[in-house]
Amino acid sequence: MAPEDRVRTFIHGFDEKLSGGIPRGHIVLLAGEPGTMKSTIAFNVLYQNALREGAPGTYISLEQGRDNLTRHLISMSLGPKDVEDKVSIVDLGMIRRNLNGMTERTWLEIFKMYASNMKRSLNYELLVVDSLPVLEVMARFENPREELFQLFEWVRDLKATTLLISELKPGSEDFGKNGEEFLSDGIIHTKMERVDDANIQRRIRCVKMRGTGHSPNYYTLLFQKGVLQATRILAE
Amino acid sequence: MAPEDRVRTFIHGFDEKLSGGIPRGHIVLLAGEPGTMKSTIAFNVLYQNALREGAPGTYISLEQGRDNLTRHLISMSLGPKDVEDKVSIVDLGMIRRNLNGMTERTWLEIFKMYASNMKRSLNYELLVVDSLPVLEVMARFENPREELFQLFEWVRDLKATTLLISELKPGSEDFGKNGEEFLSDGIIHTKMERVDDANIQRRIRCVKMRGTGHSPNYYTLLFQKGVLQATRILAE
Amino acid sequence: MAPEDRVRTFIHGFDEKLSGGIPRGHIVLLAGEPGTMKSTIAFNVLYQNALREGAPGTYISLEQGRDNLTRHLISMSLGPKDVEDKVSIVDLGMIRRNLNGMTERTWLEIFKMYASNMKRSLNYELLVVDSLPVLEVMARFENPREELFQLFEWVRDLKATTLLISELKPGSEDFGKNGEEFLSDGIIHTKMERVDDANIQRRIRCVKMRGTGHSPNYYTLLFQKGVLQATRILAE
Amino acid sequence: MAPEDRVRTFIHGFDEKLSGGIPRGHIVLLAGEPGTMKSTIAFNVLYQNALREGAPGTYISLEQGRDNLTRHLISMSLGPKDVEDKVSIVDLGMIRRNLNGMTERTWLEIFKMYASNMKRSLNYELLVVDSLPVLEVMARFENPREELFQLFEWVRDLKATTLLISELKPGSEDFGKNGEEFLSDGIIHTKMERVDDANIQRRIRCVKMRGTGHSPNYYTLLFQKGVLQATRILAE
Amino acid sequence: MAPEDRVRTFIHGFDEKLSGGIPRGHIVLLAGEPGTMKSTIAFNVLYQNALREGAPGTYISLEQGRDNLTRHLISMSLGPKDVEDKVSIVDLGMIRRNLNGMTERTWLEIFKMYASNMKRSLNYELLVVDSLPVLEVMARFENPREELFQLFEWVRDLKATTLLISELKPGSEDFGKNGEEFLSDGIIHTKMERVDDANIQRRIRCVKMRGTGHSPNYYTLLFQKGVLQATRILAE
Amino acid sequence: MAPEDRVRTFIHGFDEKLSGGIPRGHIVLLAGEPGTMKSTIAFNVLYQNALREGAPGTYISLEQGRDNLTRHLISMSLGPKDVEDKVSIVDLGMIRRNLNGMTERTWLEIFKMYASNMKRSLNYELLVVDSLPVLEVMARFENPREELFQLFEWVRDLKATTLLISELKPGSEDFGKNGEEFLSDGIIHTKMERVDDANIQRRIRCVKMRGTGHSPNYYTLLFQKGVLQATRILAE
Repeated sequence: MAPEDRVRTFIHGFDEKLSGGIPRGHIVLLAGEPGTMKSTIAFNVLYQNALREGAPGTYISLEQGRDNLTRHLISMSLGPKDVEDKVSIVDLGMIRRNLNGMTERTWLEIFKMYASNMKRSLNYELLVVDSLPVLEVMARFENPREELFQLFEWVRDLKATTLLISELKPGSEDFGKNGEEFLSDGIIHTKMERVDDANIQRRIRCVKMRGTGHSPNYYTLLFQKGVLQATRILAE
Repeated sequence: MAPEDRVRTFIHGFDEKLSGGIPRGHIVLLAGEPGTMKSTIAFNVLYQNALREGAPGTYISLEQGRDNLTRHLISMSLGPKDVEDKVSIVDLGMIRRNLNGMTERTWLEIFKMYASNMKRSLNYELLVVDSLPVLEVMARFENPREELFQLFEWVRDLKATTLLISELKPGSEDFGKNGEEFLSDGIIHTKMERVDDANIQRRIRCVKMRGTGHSPNYYTLLFQKGVLQATRILAE
Repeated sequence: MAPEDRVRTFIHGFDEKLSGGIPRGHIVLLAGEPGTMKSTIAFNVLYQNALREGAPGTYISLEQGRDNLTRHLISMSLGPKDVEDKVSIVDLGMIRRNLNGMTERTWLEIFKMYASNMKRSLNYELLVVDSLPVLEVMARFENPREELFQLFEWVRDLKATTLLISELKPGSEDFGKNGEEFLSDGIIHTKMERVDDANIQRRIRCVKMRGTGHSPNYYTLLFQKGVLQATRILAE
Repeated sequence: MAPEDRVRTFIHGFDEKLSGGIPRGHIVLLAGEPGTMKSTIAFNVLYQNALREGAPGTYISLEQGRDNLTRHLISMSLGPKDVEDKVSIVDLGMIRRNLNGMTERTWLEIFKMYASNMKRSLNYELLVVDSLPVLEVMARFENPREELFQLFEWVRDLKATTLLISELKPGSEDFGKNGEEFLSDGIIHTKMERVDDANIQRRIRCVKMRGTGHSPNYYTLLFQKGVLQATRILAE
Repeated sequence: MAPEDRVRTFIHGFDEKLSGGIPRGHIVLLAGEPGTMKSTIAFNVLYQNALREGAPGTYISLEQGRDNLTRHLISMSLGPKDVEDKVSIVDLGMIRRNLNGMTERTWLEIFKMYASNMKRSLNYELLVVDSLPVLEVMARFENPREELFQLFEWVRDLKATTLLISELKPGSEDFGKNGEEFLSDGIIHTKMERVDDANIQRRIRCVKMRGTGHSPNYYTLLFQKGVLQATRILAE
Repeated sequence: MAPEDRVRTFIHGFDEKLSGGIPRGHIVLLAGEPGTMKSTIAFNVLYQNALREGAPGTYISLEQGRDNLTRHLISMSLGPKDVEDKVSIVDLGMIRRNLNGMTERTWLEIFKMYASNMKRSLNYELLVVDSLPVLEVMARFENPREELFQLFEWVRDLKATTLLISELKPGSEDFGKNGEEFLSDGIIHTKMERVDDANIQRRIRCVKMRGTGHSPNYYTLLFQKGVLQATRILAE
C-alpha cells in the first residue's frame, strides 16, 4: 500500500510497525490509562500532519478547556500557533455554556453540528475527539450499544481519519463497555508498566488495525524535546 | 470420516488438528480478542473454499461497511474480485439505512430475510456472520438466552456451515454471555499471548468441535503473504 | 457395597476411584467447560451399560438435534444403532416445534411429560439430561433456587441414575448458580489444564459422591478408538 | 474449662486443637466446598456422642431424603440403627410434601415447629441442620440479614449445641452472604487443597470459636474405616 | 504528646507503635476477619483501662448475648466481675426483645438511647460497639453513606474514645462499604496470614491513626494467659 | 516554564519530579488508601505556601471537624496558628448543622456558597477539598458523571490551584467511579506497599499532570519532624 493511503502518527519508530501509518479514513481508538500522554499523541498527529503535509485537522475537546489545552501543548513544545491556519481546537464545554437559548439541543447534537460544520468549512482530513467516554456520558444514550453503533456510522460518513481518545482504568485492557473495540477500525493502546518496585514506564502498542499488517508488540513510549518516540523494550 | 464431510479452514497446519476441517453443517464460534484476525480468518475460509472447491459462500457484515471490508481484504491479498461469482458480501448496515419505508422490521428480521433469500438464490454452503455480539445487540432480545437458542435453531435450518465471529475481552475465555458456547457445535479461539515484556504473539486453538477428534492445544497464528498458518509453539 | 449397587462409568481407570461406580439412584452433575467431552462421556455410560449390562437408558437432548448427536456419536465410534432397542434419544427441540397445538405447555412440562412417559414405557435405569443449564433457561424459573430444588425432588422420584450435563465457564469451579452442587448427590468435573505454553490436557475428577469413598484427585482424560480412559497425571 | 462444658467432635486429633471440643450451647458453622464430608462429620458428632456419652441428638435434613442419608451413613460405617433410640433423622422435604392441608405454613415455620417439638419430646443436646443455605432459600427472607439474625436468636434459645452445615463455592472463604460468619459462635472450615498437579487433599481448620483457645491452622482430613482424623500437614 | 492524651490498647508491644496509644476521643475501626480476636481485643481495652486507670467503659453488644460474652471473657481470663463497677455490658438484643410496648422505635434509636443514657449515668470514657455491620443492618439505612456519616457525627458528640468492631471477609482489606474507613479517625486491622501450607498466624496492624505518628507494619498477634501481645514477625 | 507558574508541594524531592511543582490553576486529585497521609500532605501545601510564599489558602473539610483537624495538624508539627491570617479551615459539617433555618439548601450549594464567598473575601490561591467522595455522597447526584463534570467546570472557574482529596480502597488504582480521573488535570497517588511479610511503606507517585513533564515512578513517602519527603526506593 502506498504511503499516500496512510496517515503518519509521527511517533518515531511506530509508523514502521503500522506499515507506514493509520489507513486513511479509519476510526481509531486511542485508549490508555491516565498519564499516558493520549492528548499529546493525538494533538501531535494533527500538528505534524498540518506542519509537514499541510493536512487540515480539528481537535474537539470535551474535557479540557481550550486555554488549558493550549497551555498544555505549548509546554510540550507543540505550539497551536504554528499551525493555527490548519488546526482548529473546539472547546465544546465553553460553546455549550454560551448556547443558553438553545439548551434544548443535546450535547450529542451540538457535537455533531460542530463536527459537520467544520467539515464543511475546513474540510479537515483528521479529527480528534477528546474524549469518547465523556461524549458517551453527555449523550445520555438510552440504548448505549445501539446508539454508539449509529454514532460510529455517523462519524464514518465524515470521511476523516479519526482518533477517539478513551480513558482506561489502570491495568485494564477493557477497551470499551459498549462495543467500542468492535466498532473501531483500529486500537492503539497506551499503558503504564511497572518495571520494578520503583520505576514505571509508559508503553504503546497497536492492538488492532484493519486492513494493515502490524506488530502487536509493546514499545516504550518516550517524549523528549517535543518528539514522541516508540523504542524497543530492552531485555531485562 | 471422509474429507468431503469437512470444510477446510485453509489455515495451514490447523486442518490436520481438526481431523481435516470443520464438520459440514456445524455452527462454529470464531471467538477472540480485538486484533486477532478473526475477519481475515473467516473471509479466508470463504475465499479459499470458493477458489479451490467452487463452494458458494456469503459474508454478512454488521460492523464494517462493504467498502471497508473489501479494502481490508485486498490489503490482506484476499481479493473479493477473484471470487465474486461465488462469494457475496452483504453490508447489512447500508441495507438497513436504505430501508426507510420499512423500519418497522427489526434488524433481526432483516438479517433473517437476507440470510434466507441469499440461501435460496445462491445456495451458499458457507456462511459468515460478522459479528454475533452486534447481531445480539441490534436484535434487542427480551429473553436473550431463550431467543438466542431459537436463533441458533433457525441458523441450523439454513443447512450451511456457519462461522459466527465473536469478540472477546482481552484475557477473557468467556465465550458467551447467553449460552453461545453451549449452543455452538464448535469453538475456535484466537488470542494474544504476551510471551515476554515486549512481545506478543497471536495464538489459535480449537476449544470444542462436536463429532470430531481434535487437539485442544494452542498454536501460533501467523499471516504472511496472504497465507494463514498455525505453527507449533516453540519451547521456551 | 456390592457392584450391583453401582453404575459403571466405563471410563477405564475411573470406576476404581469411585469404589466401583456411581451409586444406583444418584443424581450426578457432569460439569465441565466446553470441549471436555461431556456428551461423549454421558452417552458412553448409556451405551456401555446397555451393551454390557442390558440396562435401558434415555438421553434427553435440549441442545443438539437428534441427527447431530447421532452423527457425533458415530464419529466417536459409539453407534446408537448398536443399542437402539435399549437406548432412546429424545430431541426435545424438535418435539416442541411439532407441538403447535399445545404451546401453552411450558418446556419444563414437556420435559417432565417425556421423562415420565418414557419411564413408564421403557423403564429406563439410566437418564442423561443434556443440558441442565438449557433446561433451566427454558423453564423460566421465577424462584430459581426453590424451583430447582423441587425439580431435583421430581427427578429423584424417577428412580433412575441420572447424569445432568452442565457447562462451566473455562477456569471456573462454580458448579451451579442455584444450588445445583448441593442438590446433586455427586459431581464429576471435567476441565482443560494448560500444562505448558502450548499444550492443553483434558482432566477428570470426582468432586463429590455421597455414600461412597472416592479419590478427589485429578486424572488425565483420554479418548482413543472409542474408549475413554482416566490415567494418572505424570509428575512434571 | 472442664470437659463437661465441651462437645467432642470425635475427629481424632482435632478436639485437642479446640481445647477439648466445641463449647456447649454454641452455634457452629460447618462450612466447606462440595465433597469435603460435611454431612459425615456432622452425623459423626451425633453418632459418637450418642454412642459414647448417651447424648440425644437430632439431624434435620433439607436436602437429602432420609433414606438417601441413611444409605450414605451406612456406607460410611456410621449406622443410624446403632443409635436410633438417641438420634433422630428428620426428612423435612418428605414432611412438607405430606402436609398438604397446611401448605399455608412456610417452610421456616415447619422447620421451627419440628425443631421445637423434638426439643420438647427428645430434649436433644445436639442439633444438625443440613443445610443452612437451603433453609435460607426456602425461608424466602425479605430482609435476609435481619431475619437471619432473628433465626440465630431463635436457635440459640433451643439451648442445644448446633452445627449448621453450609456449602461454599470451591476456593471461596466467604462463609456467608448475610452475616452468618458474625452470628455464629464458631466456624469449622473444610476445603479441598490441590497439593500438586494431580493430587487433592481434604483439609479442616477451626477459623473461629468464641470462648476458647484454638489453633487456627489447617489439618489434613482423613476418613478411614469409619474414623475421621485430622493430621498434621507434612512439610513439602 | 503527653500519655494522658492517649488510651492504651494494652496489647503489649503495640502501644509503642501508636506513640503511646489511641488519641483520646477518636473513633477507631477495629476491623478483621472471623477468628482474629476482635471482641477480646476490644473488651481488653475496657478491662485494663478500668482496672489500671479507673476509666469507666461500656460494651454494647448486638451479636452475642450478655451471658455468652461473659462466658467468653471469663474463658479468656478477662473477668467482667473484676471491673463490674466500672465496665457495663449492654445486651441490646435482649433489651429490644423486652421492649414489646415500644417496638415502634427503631433499633438505631434504641442504640442511641442506651448510648446516651449510659453516657449520662456512667460518664464512660471508652465505648465499644460490637459490631458496626450489625448495627448498620438493623438500622435499615435508606441512604447508607449519608446516614452513616450522620451516625459518626452523633457518636463523635458522645466525647468517648470509641472502638467500632467490624467484620471483614477473609482476605479482604475493604474496610467499609459506606465510607467507614474515611469517617473513622483510625483503623486497626487484624487478619489471618497463611504462613505455609499448614500454619496460620493472626496479625495486627495500625492502618490509619489521625493525629499520631504510627508504624504501618504488621505484627504477629498472640494471646497467652490473658495477655495480648504484638510481636515482630520473624524473617522467613 | 518559570517557577512562578508552579505551586510547590513542599514534599522534599518530589517537586523536582514535577518540573518544579503543580501548574497553577490545575485541579489535582490527591488519591490514596487510608493511612497514607493525604490530609497532612494537602494541609502542608497550604501551610508552607502561606508561610514561605504568602499565598492565601482555604481548607474545606467535610469529614473531620475543625478541632479534630487542628489537633491532627499540631501533632504533626503543622501549626494552623502560624498561618491563621493566611489559611482558613472551613468545617462544613458544623456549618450545616447550624444552618437550621436554611436546610432546604443542599450540601453542594452550601459548599459552593462557602467556596465562592471565601474566594471573594480571601482571594485564596490554593484550595483543598477533604474529601471529594464525601462531597459526592452528600451532593446526592442524580446523573453522577454529568453533574461531576459540571462541578469540575465550576471549580475551574474559581481560578485556584485545587487539591481534591480522594480515598481509594487498599490495593485499588481506580481513581474514580464517575470520571474523576479524566476530569482532573493531575493525579497524585499515595499507597501502602507491603515490602515483605512484616513491613509496609508509604509510597507516592505522580500519575498524571497535564502540561508538564513528570516522572511516573514511585517514591517512598516519609514524614519526620514536620517534614514530608519523597525518596528513591532502594533496590531490593
